[in-house]
Amino acid sequence: MTVLTPSAVLVVGSVALDSVETPFGRADDVLGGSGTFFSSSASHFAPVQLVGVVGDDYPVDKLQPLADRGVDLAGLEHATGTSFRWRGRYRHDLNSAETLETHLGVFSNFRPKIPEQFKNAPFVFLANIDPRLQLQVLEQVNKPRLVACDTMNFWIESRRPELVELLGHVDLITLNDGEARQLTERNNLVQAARWIMERGPRYVLIKKGEHGAFMFTPSSIFFAPAFPLESVFDPTGAGDSFAGGFIGYLAATGDLSERSMRRAVVVGSAMGSFAVEKFSNARLLEITRADIEARVQEIAQLVAFDAKLEE
Amino acid sequence: MTVLTPSAVLVVGSVALDSVETPFGRADDVLGGSGTFFSSSASHFAPVQLVGVVGDDYPVDKLQPLADRGVDLAGLEHATGTSFRWRGRYRHDLNSAETLETHLGVFSNFRPKIPEQFKNAPFVFLANIDPRLQLQVLEQVNKPRLVACDTMNFWIESRRPELVELLGHVDLITLNDGEARQLTERNNLVQAARWIMERGPRYVLIKKGEHGAFMFTPSSIFFAPAFPLESVFDPTGAGDSFAGGFIGYLAATGDLSERSMRRAVVVGSAMGSFAVEKFSNARLLEITRADIEARVQEIAQLVAFDAKLEE
Repeated sequence: MTVLTPSAVLVVGSVALDSVETPFGRADDVLGGSGTFFSSSASHFAPVQLVGVVGDDYPVDKLQPLADRGVDLAGLEHATGTSFRWRGRYRHDLNSAETLETHLGVFSNFRPKIPEQFKNAPFVFLANIDPRLQLQVLEQVNKPRLVACDTMNFWIESRRPELVELLGHVDLITLNDGEARQLTERNNLVQAARWIMERGPRYVLIKKGEHGAFMFTPSSIFFAPAFPLESVFDPTGAGDSFAGGFIGYLAATGDLSERSMRRAVVVGSAMGSFAVEKFSNARLLEITRADIEARVQEIAQLVAFDAKLEE
Repeated sequence: MTVLTPSAVLVVGSVALDSVETPFGRADDVLGGSGTFFSSSASHFAPVQLVGVVGDDYPVDKLQPLADRGVDLAGLEHATGTSFRWRGRYRHDLNSAETLETHLGVFSNFRPKIPEQFKNAPFVFLANIDPRLQLQVLEQVNKPRLVACDTMNFWIESRRPELVELLGHVDLITLNDGEARQLTERNNLVQAARWIMERGPRYVLIKKGEHGAFMFTPSSIFFAPAFPLESVFDPTGAGDSFAGGFIGYLAATGDLSERSMRRAVVVGSAMGSFAVEKFSNARLLEITRADIEARVQEIAQLVAFDAKLEE
């Protein structure tokens, strides 16, 4: 086995405090935010450089486990004011969060400043923030090998021109099926993916939660199922953990071939499935490389069949 | 290649006249019903014996293509009265039908009578009809190798005790995810499948429409994606076409190993994908064995990945 030196992954996203109620319990003021989940997941594969902002009320000691895992927090701005907080509830179906409260705090004035030593990161993930800020990040970095972005319904509605502009500057976008339909005004996901690819990205990763994920490339469609867990504890952060596994794996191998990217999607699906097994990033921090490899094998078994028909 | 003699498949279900509106057009009084879609699909693999009822208004000449494909219509009762008609509409998302009109006609007094020469069919599919009638069918047949049934929300609500009784007499049930949740009062599909298996069936096939299908067995879970079509023309009959491909393939091979059943699920998914490409059973009647094999290969490509991680 060749030992590869993983490339660095730069992620710009939110670092929040979440309060979550699920049918199985509640957790108050736990680590949350797209940047946190992404970093927790990606750090299993590659060195991560996190850019975000917290207020002076943030329990920064809770970020120590991330630092211990090789997440460089030099880009985490400490601003005067309160941290970004989200409070949400999942009902029994666990499919969609009901937002009870969003408090932006210092996040509302966030202007990402990329530290000099992060500007050459070969892999960049623009987590779900204002497309104008995502564009500002791209002005500060030096020709990354792969730029990926996420987005959400709020930006599709309020920042459509900027989001479409962003599409022209990224190699890959991850978004969920509802967001893909909303952005493209196409109900059919194959058509939606084509609409997006015509505006820039070579790759479109459409996440469907418990229904798995599609990766569209210029010449193929790949589908990875979600791992069918018997109990989903807290769905928060599954999508960002998916992205973290996906980008982290690519950064680890440095291989952007179709073969490698398909594996990366499955790694992403595995990481998303771990994320929902406990509150916050707790499960992501305790799993081992062996756990991840075992889950990837389980996903492989889930879809394995011999395609040669007999009769 | 061993040439196998396919076993006969007995199906008891509805033979209807459908009027369907989709965003792409409309079709009036076309062949419909669970028995019709199942037979159109299964007849690609095995001889089919159809039991159902039509009124004296039914355009029986439209069934000739089925007879030409080896569907034995000796069990199709011709009753005095009007045929079962369904009128429905699909909106742009194509995911759920809006029923505009249901006219049961002669179907409301249907009591399935299995012709003597059908009673030894090794494979039996009890399509979506009243569980009391499904039980009556089982009283008339002689120890089939595999009995499968379908059901729907209407029976789950109105005939729960009979449906649960039926579970004790079938080897396999096919139902969609919403129905599985409704029947078992479990939101999690793994738990729902276990609930059902505890009541009889060794196999539970949960169809999720565009999101694919799960097959639960006592020792494994298999997932087959739906083929991502760029245009879905008319979703009517996809589930019954899926079941027809699944049971038909098993009857063709006579092989109930896990390996064969996984392939059968994929064949089912392929047949479901063809069904929705045209109105009624039109596409199912025109496809060839080569078309089916090509689509199975396309589904294999869709989920193909190398599970060995590099780093």
